Amino acid sequence: EQQTSFEFYMHDNVFVSNPSGIPVAGANGSTTTFAFGTVIIIDDALTLGPSPTSTSLGRAQGTYLVTSLDASTILLTFTAVFSDRNGTLSFHGSDKITDPTREIAIVGGTGIYRFAQGFAVITTTSSVNFSAVLHFNVTFQH
Amino acid sequence: EQQTSFEFYMHDNVFVSNPSGIPVAGANGSTTTFAFGTVIIIDDALTLGPSPTSTSLGRAQGTYLVTSLDASTILLTFTAVFSDRNGTLSFHGSDKITDPTREIAIVGGTGIYRFAQGFAVITTTSSVNFSAVLHFNVTFQH
Amino acid sequence: EQQTSFEFYMHDNVFVSNPSGIPVAGANGSTTTFAFGTVIIIDDALTLGPSPTSTSLGRAQGTYLVTSLDASTILLTFTAVFSDRNGTLSFHGSDKITDPTREIAIVGGTGIYRFAQGFAVITTTSSVNFSAVLHFNVTFQH
Repeated sequence: EQQTSFEFYMHDNVFVSNPSGIPVAGANGSTTTFAFGTVIIIDDALTLGPSPTSTSLGRAQGTYLVTSLDASTILLTFTAVFSDRNGTLSFHGSDKITDPTREIAIVGGTGIYRFAQGFAVITTTSSVNFSAVLHFNVTFQH
Repeated sequence: EQQTSFEFYMHDNVFVSNPSGIPVAGANGSTTTFAFGTVIIIDDALTLGPSPTSTSLGRAQGTYLVTSLDASTILLTFTAVFSDRNGTLSFHGSDKITDPTREIAIVGGTGIYRFAQGFAVITTTSSVNFSAVLHFNVTFQH
Repeated sequence: EQQTSFEFYMHDNVFVSNPSGIPVAGANGSTTTFAFGTVIIIDDALTLGPSPTSTSLGRAQGTYLVTSLDASTILLTFTAVFSDRNGTLSFHGSDKITDPTREIAIVGGTGIYRFAQGFAVITTTSSVNFSAVLHFNVTFQH
């Protein structure tokens, strides 16, 4: 069993043209707001640096749910598919987006990351409206 | 690696005024019933005792999906955010709500519960229509 | 801690009469297509052999989300409830259905599979439109 750490950036673009995340359900049938109950499906780019044109590492594919009554917290549940590493990591955790630093769990992995378990420390690098660039610092055993 | 066990109660209030869980999708577009396909997003209170006014421990934030054709079973997938312990636990598992005792998996954790893996034994303390107080007895290694 | 491996088949029948998987949300409110954003809730039969009339092993209850812009990839997140073994396994991972072989993570378990962690290798045995029989070869430690 070894411990691995690395970093990447995730680019989540919602409520824009050419979105990487789209709302598909929400309270009272609304998919035009970011409120308790909103379900967003994502296919977000993962890159080495904070710029969207930085080296691509793969995609974050999954969903986040607005899971607090005050819309400050999302449940992030997705798989990071690393195109060049022949491996994936599965994430599951609560992200209070108004906190400067937060943490979600790494609950599994495949390929070179089989049996992965660990955590990711998340910070927001930049945000415009509901779109954001997030920095992930992952640590896991496998 | 240590093993930790503790108990808490979860208060899920749906199809009521001031709900803690709201349906956002369902079969044939319906969000007014509890049937195969219904998706409910939750921000449920977690307490030390069975009363909703008991000491608060945090929130259960996530979702449950009605995942059996006969509507007896839900997939519970949420993060328990423990306000006073600086840690979270991520849950994932099938809950046949008509069974007196059932079990779901703990698939990860953060903060003081990093690398958590284990299980929760669930019983229904009380229920009115689709709202319920659930008792969780959790055991995990971390 | 022991390592266990076994195989089963999963029968996913969608967009047919008597479906085992139903779309409940999607991009622009559509639940009639299989496209980025479609959310499908499943209660799929698990069998010993590839025929739907083969020995029943249990049910796969959960969801899959179409999580790539080109609709080639789904996020599978479900619990396999094995009726005769008194145990469940929770799965979470990205499945590029156009690949001949792919892999998702096993992130937890209950009953005889408590503390399970591992992976499943998936191949498509047969498919008609969006319905498919999938072969799972699971390996996990517990």
